[in-house]
Amino acid sequence: MDKWILTSEKIDWKKMKKRESIWTQGNGYMGIRASFEEGYTGSARNTLINGLFDCPKEEVAELAVLPDATNCEISFNGETFNMICGIVENFRTSLNMRTGEFTRTLDWTSPKGKKFSIVFSRMVSDARKHVMAQRVWITPLSEDVEVCLVTGIDGKITNTGVQHFGNPEKRAYKDGIKGMYLTTLQSQVDVAIHYTLKFNKECTERITIDRRSVYSEVRTTVGKNDTFTMEKLVSYATERDFEYADFEYSDEVLRNDGKAYLNEVIELGYDGLLKESARSWSQFWQESLVDVNANDALIDGAIIFAQYHLHIMASRDDNRLGIGAKALSGEGYMGHSYWDTEIFILPYYLCTEPQVARRLLEYRYQLLPVAKNKAAKFGFQGAMYPWESTWITDGEGCIEYGDMDLLTGEKRRFTMGETEIHVTAGVAFAAWQYYCMTGDEEFMEKYGNELIIRTAIFWADRAEKRNGRYEILGVIGADEYKEDVDNNTYTNYMAHKNLVLAKNILDSNPERLLRKLEKEYNMKDVKMEISEVAENLYLPVAEEDGIIPQFDGCKSLKEKDITYYKNLDSVFDIFKDYGFAEILQMQVFKQADIVMLFYLMSDVFDEETVRKNFAYYEERTLHDSSLSMCIHALVAVRLGMKDMAEKLFYDCCCVDFGENTNNSDAGIHSASIGGIWLATVMGYGGLRITDNSLQLKPVLPDGWENYSFPVWYRGSKLKVLVDKNGCCVERVLGDAVTIVLNGKEILV
Amino acid sequence: MDKWILTSEKIDWKKMKKRESIWTQGNGYMGIRASFEEGYTGSARNTLINGLFDCPKEEVAELAVLPDATNCEISFNGETFNMICGIVENFRTSLNMRTGEFTRTLDWTSPKGKKFSIVFSRMVSDARKHVMAQRVWITPLSEDVEVCLVTGIDGKITNTGVQHFGNPEKRAYKDGIKGMYLTTLQSQVDVAIHYTLKFNKECTERITIDRRSVYSEVRTTVGKNDTFTMEKLVSYATERDFEYADFEYSDEVLRNDGKAYLNEVIELGYDGLLKESARSWSQFWQESLVDVNANDALIDGAIIFAQYHLHIMASRDDNRLGIGAKALSGEGYMGHSYWDTEIFILPYYLCTEPQVARRLLEYRYQLLPVAKNKAAKFGFQGAMYPWESTWITDGEGCIEYGDMDLLTGEKRRFTMGETEIHVTAGVAFAAWQYYCMTGDEEFMEKYGNELIIRTAIFWADRAEKRNGRYEILGVIGADEYKEDVDNNTYTNYMAHKNLVLAKNILDSNPERLLRKLEKEYNMKDVKMEISEVAENLYLPVAEEDGIIPQFDGCKSLKEKDITYYKNLDSVFDIFKDYGFAEILQMQVFKQADIVMLFYLMSDVFDEETVRKNFAYYEERTLHDSSLSMCIHALVAVRLGMKDMAEKLFYDCCCVDFGENTNNSDAGIHSASIGGIWLATVMGYGGLRITDNSLQLKPVLPDGWENYSFPVWYRGSKLKVLVDKNGCCVERVLGDAVTIVLNGKEILV
Repeated sequence: MDKWILTSEKIDWKKMKKRESIWTQGNGYMGIRASFEEGYTGSARNTLINGLFDCPKEEVAELAVLPDATNCEISFNGETFNMICGIVENFRTSLNMRTGEFTRTLDWTSPKGKKFSIVFSRMVSDARKHVMAQRVWITPLSEDVEVCLVTGIDGKITNTGVQHFGNPEKRAYKDGIKGMYLTTLQSQVDVAIHYTLKFNKECTERITIDRRSVYSEVRTTVGKNDTFTMEKLVSYATERDFEYADFEYSDEVLRNDGKAYLNEVIELGYDGLLKESARSWSQFWQESLVDVNANDALIDGAIIFAQYHLHIMASRDDNRLGIGAKALSGEGYMGHSYWDTEIFILPYYLCTEPQVARRLLEYRYQLLPVAKNKAAKFGFQGAMYPWESTWITDGEGCIEYGDMDLLTGEKRRFTMGETEIHVTAGVAFAAWQYYCMTGDEEFMEKYGNELIIRTAIFWADRAEKRNGRYEILGVIGADEYKEDVDNNTYTNYMAHKNLVLAKNILDSNPERLLRKLEKEYNMKDVKMEISEVAENLYLPVAEEDGIIPQFDGCKSLKEKDITYYKNLDSVFDIFKDYGFAEILQMQVFKQADIVMLFYLMSDVFDEETVRKNFAYYEERTLHDSSLSMCIHALVAVRLGMKDMAEKLFYDCCCVDFGENTNNSDAGIHSASIGGIWLATVMGYGGLRITDNSLQLKPVLPDGWENYSFPVWYRGSKLKVLVDKNGCCVERVLGDAVTIVLNGKEILV
Repeated sequence: MDKWILTSEKIDWKKMKKRESIWTQGNGYMGIRASFEEGYTGSARNTLINGLFDCPKEEVAELAVLPDATNCEISFNGETFNMICGIVENFRTSLNMRTGEFTRTLDWTSPKGKKFSIVFSRMVSDARKHVMAQRVWITPLSEDVEVCLVTGIDGKITNTGVQHFGNPEKRAYKDGIKGMYLTTLQSQVDVAIHYTLKFNKECTERITIDRRSVYSEVRTTVGKNDTFTMEKLVSYATERDFEYADFEYSDEVLRNDGKAYLNEVIELGYDGLLKESARSWSQFWQESLVDVNANDALIDGAIIFAQYHLHIMASRDDNRLGIGAKALSGEGYMGHSYWDTEIFILPYYLCTEPQVARRLLEYRYQLLPVAKNKAAKFGFQGAMYPWESTWITDGEGCIEYGDMDLLTGEKRRFTMGETEIHVTAGVAFAAWQYYCMTGDEEFMEKYGNELIIRTAIFWADRAEKRNGRYEILGVIGADEYKEDVDNNTYTNYMAHKNLVLAKNILDSNPERLLRKLEKEYNMKDVKMEISEVAENLYLPVAEEDGIIPQFDGCKSLKEKDITYYKNLDSVFDIFKDYGFAEILQMQVFKQADIVMLFYLMSDVFDEETVRKNFAYYEERTLHDSSLSMCIHALVAVRLGMKDMAEKLFYDCCCVDFGENTNNSDAGIHSASIGGIWLATVMGYGGLRITDNSLQLKPVLPDGWENYSFPVWYRGSKLKVLVDKNGCCVERVLGDAVTIVLNGKEILV
């Protein structure tokens, strides 16, 4: 099995949605699920564009599912091709992660007994963000046949029933390009979609329109054993494209650009586009590949799979876009960005593509006005980041009220937006990590310092003086099984770091920034308050038994042995026995919380404390979150707990890449995919980012041949290779840099 | 074959949408297409409620497709039932038109080889307009099995991609009723949908919610050869219900009523509801049956089929509702009412259920303000009816601009609303026909006289003085292949009738009405103008060759022999050879135009003229409209043209009821269904409505055994029976009345 190629030789209807998700194609600008060209019940045929949010009345903004261009209905002498009827043989579908191409080949015997060979290919260009292309190869095997293909742009598609676009305009141009123009209903963003067709032989193309759709009906006669080829080239463009960020936009410009994107590639055709795109992919892999040879197809494949998705989830140019919890692979979580981006995904870019990391942080910087408004709404100074971020001006994406209680009719209050505040510290922390890794002073001066100070102002205000110290009350920590708790250890430590970072920046007297902030704040007072709270913020420490309480009173909650549930196929089964209200009152945890700190602040806790607390909390944690396994795996590796690490690492690889049927239906888990990299490079590779150094302490897991990964550090690119002989760090690009390998400073 | 029961023993996926349309169930309040409970690609699962219009931005009002309650997913030990996999045997699906019940029985062998017998039944209550019910019978034939059914209310459904409802609220009540509450996005009409389940054995029911949906997940273990039964009872209610027409509405009342509709029938259950509904159907058939024994299953069935649909398409109580071109059987024509209602459908109700006819005319009366506004918009006095009518306050439903030209980008102007003005005369004509048949003075005083005068005021203003006479310029007549013509014969005669009717009414000095109208018009002037135009309106007559021109210059258009196209499967094929602009310039006609007059004004034209003109125009008519065959059939019968009549009658029966695959996908053709009755009763039965009499001149077509039909006339109910011995007219109810049978006055 080639670890670069995901293959399936079975049509598994129950896994259709999952396969559509995990085989999503994209380029950071758009994502297209791997739905089959002809339609099937249960398929979620989504094309999504990064940042294209729209907010229906009384709901929150979500990524709008775009009109679909992947459709193609084929009929032979009037018999419609469909894999549910007739006989399908030699079925093989694959996603080539080396080139980004998705193909399906099969032989089909129609109900009337005629046989055909059909090959579908599809690609989203890695080299031209607006372009995708499709190819269909048809070979009649029984006799000459009249082939009819119907393919076009289908705007009937919705977000699970919600239509985000007004009535589309449709056009057909003399040069063969067909267009559809739409505008989102609430956010009023224009979208232009164009396609054109190419054929290897003469045929008739009739344009038909229908409500919300424009189609080509292509007819030709194909001889027995001849092959008819249709190529479909498609471009997507929207008013929100980065090209128009600082540009006088008009819908005419958009339409012309959309057509130009196509005109530029018609000559190239599918093959040319694929070659170009594969070259772009190849360059990516050459520069960024984390290569693991674990002698285990699942692990080897999962790491390629993770990088494939990490490559297609982040924009290549736009600093106004985050990464959704499902990236661009499905409707799940409505395309919203959470703390996941900074804590689970950003480290990958920090090490592999620092310029992407910078753009992701610039996105957060551009959210500062939203964060300021949110803080003000809750009566605080400074910047309080949205729990769920969408478009830079859209505000908090987390609903305040969930569906009403079915029985009482009362609306369930959703407090995450108000109390899951650690995201704010996570953003500041990530800005700092970026600086540690890159030394990018310009970034700090333009964005980082301000972001860290404004978030620190929030914390200084949010913390309350109690018991002669500052405490942070009424929060949800990283662990979501505990709500409205006081002094959540994860939150307090992260807030503290944020305050200390801000204090240091203020101590350095950044003049330009102080002048800017003086317009809003008395900066002398601000500096004092930040110092005061930083020095006196309560940071929970280990109690007599060596265990740090996850929050005030945590350890006096009821104990419950959860071994039984941890061993079940679905840990959710615990909710068959206990209500959520009961779980809130037990020492049962959903995910890493204090263990998160061991990952992020490896220099703060001694090994003994980490070991004890890891054992204590892991035993009580259900890992009922795709964010949990990777962090536990990482910490377990660092603790040398081989078996535990191996099991958790494997579980983390399986979140999307494993056999579990439906867990990825609504899209991949982007944080967990980042987590595969985290567990590999920051776990096995032992990479740690501290204030003053890059540390490496690699181990080679049992059974692994070797692994290697690139790291950008302070403008130089290193390559770390770990095998049975130990670890070799070489410099690939840039000047010599000092790093700490196995505790010793070395110059590479 | 029982002509009362439509049956299919083959799953024909290509005809799925057509079957869904023509097997639609309903009760005049709601219509539900006959989609299968489990979902299939290509199914159009619509539930529609009469009058529930909503108008998306930049579009026109359309009947909103409601959240669906017919869904039911079944799985056996985790294997999901679906007819596309496994083996289906003993498949039989049927619509019993006697009782209104739709059933499907089949044996299914799952992919894993387990066998089950499954029976689905569904009904829309004919006795309780808000209620529908469903039943599923499951019998495992191989072994005991865990059955899981998932069924509920699915609000993800759209009108071909357009969502008309905001985010729904969902509730589950202690008494087992589940509810969904929604509001249309633009028209802001509240809707309440409730369901509850009943079982024949113990099982667990878990309520789950999802975006825009609420579901029950029902689980139980069923022994081999045992039968598990689930009944689902559903109620629909909306703010537009007639119950709230004169009532202080609140959403609480709506919800309570919706629940009450269900609570009242839980005890009854499916069987009780079916019995009650079947009794109601039985009473309808007993009172209204047009019974034809033609020794031809297609004809015998088509007439039952037509009456079945005529019974479910009209509201039983609400005088604010019309009948859409597809009634409540699909999205086609967006639920809009055209001239079809009065000219093709109303005569059925006039004869069979005059109270329904009256309500349909009251609907038109309530549209007068809309018709006045429309006239004013185009610079005219009086009432100009919408070409397409929707909700009584919604205005013209005909778009002014169609989709833009794909090539030029120019918006195609749709002139129907402005120029297809004969609908206005059709409405007045129908009000008069109603009066002729019923003698309902109260109706005329309250509604009819005013309607006729206001429409006549429009005609008097619309007609222009030219060539020393009044002419009506720039119209589309009944025949839609000719646009912007002058003095369309159909339009001019109908307008003339309208004017003459108004003149007569004004001559009778209706005091109350004159006082009302005086507030808007100088009635002396109005009376003069109406007289003047009525007397001097140009009414085209036969030219030297005996042929009446369809409009000015019609007969100098290019001749074209269309025999070739008339004999093709699809007459549309003419458009492969000629553009529409060319057809406009040829003596090729789409449908009856002058022939319409022969049907409506049988006393105006002598037989020789009718015969000559019928021959001339029929030869040049493609019948590319479902409105054409029935009228031609009717006139051919009257002319004694047996073969021609038979062929056209048969074609008319086939429009929906025949084998043609896709023509009814978006719904049945309600006018053509009215036309089946027209051709039968007004064709073969020779029934004519004239100003002063009801005329009958029945013939028995070759091969028919007999036929009979009821006629209400002036408050008495007659039954006409025609067989080989001649015609027998008997009085069933009411006082003796005089009619004209075969030209002779008789007292019945």
